[in-house]
This record gives sequence, structure tokens and C-alpha cells, in this order.
Amino acid sequence: MESHKITIRVRYQETDGQGIVHHGNYLTYFEKARIECLRDIGISYRDVENAGLFLVVAKAELNYYQPAYFDDELEIETKVLSSKGAAIVHQYTITRGEDIIMSGTTRVGCLTKDGKVTRVPKWLGGKGEFQKPV
Amino acid sequence: MESHKITIRVRYQETDGQGIVHHGNYLTYFEKARIECLRDIGISYRDVENAGLFLVVAKAELNYYQPAYFDDELEIETKVLSSKGAAIVHQYTITRGEDIIMSGTTRVGCLTKDGKVTRVPKWLGGKGEFQKPV
Amino acid sequence: MESHKITIRVRYQETDGQGIVHHGNYLTYFEKARIECLRDIGISYRDVENAGLFLVVAKAELNYYQPAYFDDELEIETKVLSSKGAAIVHQYTITRGEDIIMSGTTRVGCLTKDGKVTRVPKWLGGKGEFQKPV
Amino acid sequence: MESHKITIRVRYQETDGQGIVHHGNYLTYFEKARIECLRDIGISYRDVENAGLFLVVAKAELNYYQPAYFDDELEIETKVLSSKGAAIVHQYTITRGEDIIMSGTTRVGCLTKDGKVTRVPKWLGGKGEFQKPV
Repeated sequence: MESHKITIRVRYQETDGQGIVHHGNYLTYFEKARIECLRDIGISYRDVENAGLFLVVAKAELNYYQPAYFDDELEIETKVLSSKGAAIVHQYTITRGEDIIMSGTTRVGCLTKDGKVTRVPKWLGGKGEFQKPV
Repeated sequence: MESHKITIRVRYQETDGQGIVHHGNYLTYFEKARIECLRDIGISYRDVENAGLFLVVAKAELNYYQPAYFDDELEIETKVLSSKGAAIVHQYTITRGEDIIMSGTTRVGCLTKDGKVTRVPKWLGGKGEFQKPV
Repeated sequence: MESHKITIRVRYQETDGQGIVHHGNYLTYFEKARIECLRDIGISYRDVENAGLFLVVAKAELNYYQPAYFDDELEIETKVLSSKGAAIVHQYTITRGEDIIMSGTTRVGCLTKDGKVTRVPKWLGGKGEFQKPV
Repeated sequence: MESHKITIRVRYQETDGQGIVHHGNYLTYFEKARIECLRDIGISYRDVENAGLFLVVAKAELNYYQPAYFDDELEIETKVLSSKGAAIVHQYTITRGEDIIMSGTTRVGCLTKDGKVTRVPKWLGGKGEFQKPV
């Protein structure tokens, strides 16, 4: 399976009083990873929304193994586990060098502007007809 | 001059690696204070936006005197320094018991849905005609 | 099983460009709920850390059913599903009136100041000996 | 006067219900800019704190001219206006192409681990003796 990698550097603001990355921020990192995956296939998520398709998180699972610290360079590896029906499932693994910091999955649903569920379009790996943004 | 007071309790997520409230969060506290000021005169900011009026921060000044910590109960006192033309100026003082934690001011501008500057309406203390949300 | 309820009001800053609460913020809401559960049994989490015990999130699952909006009053109901060994499992259900917005679980591990896993102490429902903060 | 430039891309989580970057996030962007300025002269802020010196924001001013949107590439230009006594004053200008989005200044104070004010050390442009982290 293909995977996509990005690197982020932990911001000071993302740490909390325990001196580590606050566990909620990883969902923001995942979001950034999904957006960069899209860009990698030539799609800006901004155009997706402008075209009337919204990708909304329906489920998330996060497993934390080791803390990450301010200024750490973290690598996020993202795989698309599934892209069918109205949902895309991504899997993420975040590492710092040899250390696995955490991993997780999200399930995002495809919605139209008026909130109706719609099939994942072909250009996102599914069978739906929703037109690709240009 | 009248003032309005709210109390907030510092969330763990709002602290940073220095073990204190991250300085950026005070703008979120100010925002909450402005919204509660409005509620106090019977207006939900949600209705304001639904009615087509947007209050957008144009300027902010923040002075930090002492750190605040997780679980602190902070009092935010808010005064409207000015409400004329197209802008409202608020002043904030944040205290923990006798200690002054920080103070600041913001200048929010009134914009219509299409981004045009509009005079502060009467129900917000100005001279404009923008209709009060119901 | 006993449960504990808190109410929070959605802040403007917690919404995102989709006009709904950003999905990452629910982990911050869960954190607040855990802290208020502790307070309800007479314990400040600040004192817990000062006594040298750290509760660190090891796993989280989130299921999103409906969007929440700025200024919504959300009720968070929290139950302790398990408190044994070195971990406490909480379950959360977030509602707005009759609507279920989302639900989730977290597993927090007990660590000492030097990062060693330690059994959940008796005053947190476990069998460990870690002294209760005063 | 020398300046230092970084580019950041706006994250989805940084937008709010108005569909624009929430005004509080610019303080996080400023913070990142300061940290990258330090890195540019060979200093990691992590090492600064490990060496016992803390740079704490004492004052901030922000002027907002135009909204920034999700996925915008913003350039942050940072200048050190002053570095003497116990404080460093930075000036920031954030642009998107030809558009000036906002500008601001911060005043950060130098503190020792026990919270005492100390003169800006020579390696940060001041006259203080605090040892440079290695």
C-alpha cells in the first residue's frame, strides 16, 4: 500500500503543563497530513469545499506510546486503508527517528453542502460521481 | 463606567510547556468576555451573525503582569471604552484574587456579510441603523 | 453505574471554517470533564501532579454523530468504566438537549514523576498505594 | 536592519466560524517566528530553557488588516527592534503575496528558572552574562 509522509516541527503552543505535546493536537496533525495527501494528488482541500464537497471526521482512534516535546521533528506517515461508500479511512503513524510516538485512524465521511451523505468520488478512490474541483 | 465580570477556570490544555497559561489564550478569554457582555444585554452573538453583522477584531493590545496556572479561577472585567463610528473598543482586566494577571484592549469593527464596514448599530451603543437580531 | 455531568458552552474560537466545533476540541472537553469528576470527589488535579502522580492519556476513541455550533450548551456525561491496574477508562457522552453530538472513551495511565507506570491508587478507585494529595 | 523570514501554511484547525484565521493564532505564528529567528543564529529555544533562561511575553500588540484563509501561504517577516536591559522587542509583518494581512510587536522578558528578571545575554544582542546554551 502506498503511503505519504510529511514532517512537522512541534510548536511551543502545542505543549501543555506536562511539558509534552497535548494529546488533542494530534488530531490537528492528522488533519494536516490528510490535506497534504490530497495536495500530493493535485487537489487542494480548499477547492474541494468550494466545489461543494465536505470531508467531515466521523470517527477517530488514537494510541499514544511516547511523549513528543517542543521542537521535535515528527514524521507522519499516512495510508488510505479504505475509500468506498461514503467514507475514507486513513491510518497514521507518527515517529521521531526510531521512536514511535503514536498512531491512529480516522474515518471521514463525504457530505454535500446541505449535509447529505454522498459516495466518495472517483478522484478520491471511491465510486461516486461528485465532480473533481478544478 | 459600567463593567461586566465573568469568571473562567483555566483548562489544562490552555497551559504550555512553561507550566503557565499560553499568552495567546487570553485573546480567546477576551472573546468569551465580549460574548458574555452581549448576552448580558440580551443579545446572542450567534444571532448577530445570523442577522448579517460581523464583529471582527481589528486591533489588540495585551499586557502580561503575572502568570496564570492550570485550574486558576480568573475574573475578567470588561468595559466598553468606546462604541462609535464603525468600531467598539473594549478594555479587559484579568485578576486572580488580589493579583492582576494581565490587561488588554481590543478594537472590533462592524462588517456586513459582504465585508463592508458599517456603523455600530444603536443597540450596540453606536449610531448605526443595522437591525437588532431577534 | 454512577455518572458525572458538566455543561460547557462552545466558544467561538473552538469552531472551524466549516462553522462547527473542530473535532479535536472534544478531547479538551473530555479533559475538562475528567478534571471536574475529580473535583467532585474532592481532588484537584493540580494537587495530584504536585503530589507526583501524572495521569496521561494512552488511548482515545471518538465517535462524531452531529455537529455542534458556537454558543451551544453541551452536556458532557462521564462514567468511569474501569479503574484498575495502572489505568482508568472513562466514557463520555456529549448531548445538546435530546441530540447526541458525540461519544468517546479515553484510557489514562498513572505515571510517577520519573515516568514509571504505577497502580491506580485507592482514592481513584484502584488498588495502588500512591498517597492521596491533601 | 536585518530581518528574518519564514513561511507558514494556514491549518484548517486555525480557522474559525467566520471562515478566517482566528485572530488569536497570530500570537502562535509570532512565537514560531521568534523560535526560527533563534535557530537561524544557531540556537534552539529548547536549549535556552534547558540552560535555565526563559523568554516570557510581557506585551503584545496586533493590528489586523485583512483576513487570512485556510491553506494560505503566509510570509512572516521578523525584525529585532531592540534587545537591551531585560527585554527583546520583535516586530512582525505577515503578508500573503502583495497583501499585508497583519502586523504586530511583542516584548519578551528574560527570566531565570526561579522567575527573576535578568539582562538579555550577549548572544541575544544584549549586555547580560547569561551563558549561551551549547
